[in-house]
Amino acid sequence: MTGRNDIPGLLRQLFGADAVIDAPDAMARYLCDWRGLYRGSAQAILRPATADAVAAAVRFCGDRSIGIVPQGGNTGLVGGATPAGDGSEIVLSLERLNRIRSVDPADFSLVAEAGCILAEVQSAAARANRLFPLSLGAEGTCQIGGNIATNAGGINVLRYGNTRDLVLGLEIVLADGTVWNDLRRVRKDNTGYAIRQLLIGSEGTLGIITAAALRLFPQPRQRIAALAAVDGIDQATALFSLVMEQIGEFVSSFEYMSGAAVEFAVEIVPGTRLPFDRPHGAYVLAELAAAFEEPPLAAAFERVLGDALEGNVIRDAVIPESEAKRSALWQLREAIVESQRVGGASIKHDVSVPVSAVPDFIRAAGDAIEAALPGTRILPFGHLGDGNIHYNLMRPPRISDDEFRGHGPSLTRIVHDIVASFGGSFSAEHGLGQLRRAEADRLKPPVERELMRRIKSAFDPGGILNRGKLV
Amino acid sequence: MTGRNDIPGLLRQLFGADAVIDAPDAMARYLCDWRGLYRGSAQAILRPATADAVAAAVRFCGDRSIGIVPQGGNTGLVGGATPAGDGSEIVLSLERLNRIRSVDPADFSLVAEAGCILAEVQSAAARANRLFPLSLGAEGTCQIGGNIATNAGGINVLRYGNTRDLVLGLEIVLADGTVWNDLRRVRKDNTGYAIRQLLIGSEGTLGIITAAALRLFPQPRQRIAALAAVDGIDQATALFSLVMEQIGEFVSSFEYMSGAAVEFAVEIVPGTRLPFDRPHGAYVLAELAAAFEEPPLAAAFERVLGDALEGNVIRDAVIPESEAKRSALWQLREAIVESQRVGGASIKHDVSVPVSAVPDFIRAAGDAIEAALPGTRILPFGHLGDGNIHYNLMRPPRISDDEFRGHGPSLTRIVHDIVASFGGSFSAEHGLGQLRRAEADRLKPPVERELMRRIKSAFDPGGILNRGKLV
Repeated sequence: MTGRNDIPGLLRQLFGADAVIDAPDAMARYLCDWRGLYRGSAQAILRPATADAVAAAVRFCGDRSIGIVPQGGNTGLVGGATPAGDGSEIVLSLERLNRIRSVDPADFSLVAEAGCILAEVQSAAARANRLFPLSLGAEGTCQIGGNIATNAGGINVLRYGNTRDLVLGLEIVLADGTVWNDLRRVRKDNTGYAIRQLLIGSEGTLGIITAAALRLFPQPRQRIAALAAVDGIDQATALFSLVMEQIGEFVSSFEYMSGAAVEFAVEIVPGTRLPFDRPHGAYVLAELAAAFEEPPLAAAFERVLGDALEGNVIRDAVIPESEAKRSALWQLREAIVESQRVGGASIKHDVSVPVSAVPDFIRAAGDAIEAALPGTRILPFGHLGDGNIHYNLMRPPRISDDEFRGHGPSLTRIVHDIVASFGGSFSAEHGLGQLRRAEADRLKPPVERELMRRIKSAFDPGGILNRGKLV
Repeated sequence: MTGRNDIPGLLRQLFGADAVIDAPDAMARYLCDWRGLYRGSAQAILRPATADAVAAAVRFCGDRSIGIVPQGGNTGLVGGATPAGDGSEIVLSLERLNRIRSVDPADFSLVAEAGCILAEVQSAAARANRLFPLSLGAEGTCQIGGNIATNAGGINVLRYGNTRDLVLGLEIVLADGTVWNDLRRVRKDNTGYAIRQLLIGSEGTLGIITAAALRLFPQPRQRIAALAAVDGIDQATALFSLVMEQIGEFVSSFEYMSGAAVEFAVEIVPGTRLPFDRPHGAYVLAELAAAFEEPPLAAAFERVLGDALEGNVIRDAVIPESEAKRSALWQLREAIVESQRVGGASIKHDVSVPVSAVPDFIRAAGDAIEAALPGTRILPFGHLGDGNIHYNLMRPPRISDDEFRGHGPSLTRIVHDIVASFGGSFSAEHGLGQLRRAEADRLKPPVERELMRRIKSAFDPGGILNRGKLV
């Protein structure tokens, strides 16, 4: 028997026992983010298995003014999928909506449900000799619905775009419990407002994505990477123009790693080493891919890097000959992330500016941080080809992690203000969630925040979807 | 002296004589569309020269509840820039906002005002050794602001995307007369709702675009086209997969021309000829481009077409060796458009379906049209790589143009219903404007139309922007 306020009991009656989790132990992993920075509580975790069940859940919550927190793989970095602390909300996990509904190689598209793990979407495409290019560190855990709701970026944006550019259609449950089937698979459709675009990146505040039609691409038959050593960020940026002008159609990644970030990774992560005989100011990891098998890309890449060496744009370069060696270069890139995760307190910024402004941004931010807290380790790296820098800071040797964390808000304000002065974004990939909402109020034009509030009201007048996030 | 209701006089006082046109002769070209299908009237044509002046004009009209019709190059096909017939509105032409504000080759971006002619934007990019890839028939007349407001397509969508994909930032005058400077030049920005995306393709109903930051690409150093003869649409679609799988990164256009459309062009447009010794069921015009100079693309293209010939996917092919011959192939494509313009009454449909569904769509629509009005000349052609077919019809020999036009609404309904059954779009490139608004009410889900109305109210509560268009 269930009482009027026994929400988990009512949910069990309506959705089945499999769909409801309310035992504290089992709920725990849905109630905090993977980094352990945000913790919330909830009346229950609800795991519907169909879009209709999601719609019923939304109506159930709407009738009772219960807040809903949509959750995918829970790998976000801004607390966007963590419920509030008051225990009033329901976490709606999409994990059971996990079917690939169809794959259409001739149309270069597939339809996947929101709870499909990103790596499974990649595999389904690969089995049909197609590429789904979205790729990021969490791909073994994150879900495609969450990728879309947060407009995920990753390492292939330069060539294939953000998640936004990979979505052809959506199936969405709206705040009134309507299922809107907008699962189109057309490349061109000018029949009204781009509402789909508004939902992409809306972090679960305007509707709940239950499935998506996704774009596929020809599967590369060859892939080649190079690590180039340069004096600094100016040369890295110059190399970008050179590579794009000569062999731009093949470039899928163009990653910048500051010398300091690499040094720190070598220091902290066992087995990390650089394939050069001396350290350099900065490094670029670029990857090319092509649909054709012949001629090999290596020759063209070597020619461009040879020109760059002669022109003093780069100091050294390696093009690994084996797949194992190519993947070792990416391990170096991953070691940077790892070193900043385990190497002590880290104050992270995920910013973007115009590509041409990256050198000036890095100089201006470096000067300002050094002035504010001398000795801070400045360890920038990121997707230079997108102008997207992970501008991360670690403590000066003389102070403790805790003391350093105390400087976080003021250091972040310094970095974001400089980003704003270059017309940049203070959250290039990661979104607003809980972490950056106040920063949006501070840095976005009031007119834009006002339009966001009006849009939120138009889509969710009762305010039940992901309260306290984004707007 | 100007009276209270002398709107042109008041506008002259506020904006200067250069900014106001109210002589009937001079107004005429702003009051009807270029095809002469829509005619309206207006109190005046206002031509502000700055974003602030546009904002002042919007406030002026808002205070008086005067409707505003934003107008670019006036090359649209759906009456979206033509005022109503009652003479109550003001046409706001962006033609004097025509400066390229900046070009940044290292960032692969430029900033152009809304009234810049598309061809001028292309030239500004080319002078900086960069490509602005948007390209369409009207490029010598249409304006970039109009391209953005209608999310224009064109011949390079397959490789570079729709206009939506080429816009980094916008400067917009909102319905309350605020200038919203969102002229960012960043590739990645996840700091809230994608309002910019909503404005792109909103046909002047949500705000007035006054400037845009646009993406540029490496300038191709070689370009090569091929014309392939195939038995029909099935083979054309099979060739698309083959080409994409082998040399997909180079393909900028993949155009389908039905044998009937080509035959009609040869019949109507003097000097049009096919480079084959016999007619075929259909033709594909594909174009490749690459940033690198060497090796030439011809060898790879020949290899793929050779495979297609051996596999009976194509019957014949030519790869022109000179630029003149390449451009002759495009003249053939243009002759199709021309023949349908001058060859008599034509009922046009700009539709899209998934690429893999194009053959079935063409068969189903052909059967239904033949059943409804036997002998109708069915002359489809279009951007097969985007699933976008211009499914155009001309009269059977036995009836008059006027009689044929009378069948227009019922034939269009047949075509659009079949498009809908394939999950397609009844306006792939051209938008809704006045022409397709009722069709949107008929074919879009009610929930989507309702969301559009709510969005319109959120952005333009007074309803002054482009009344009676889109929503």
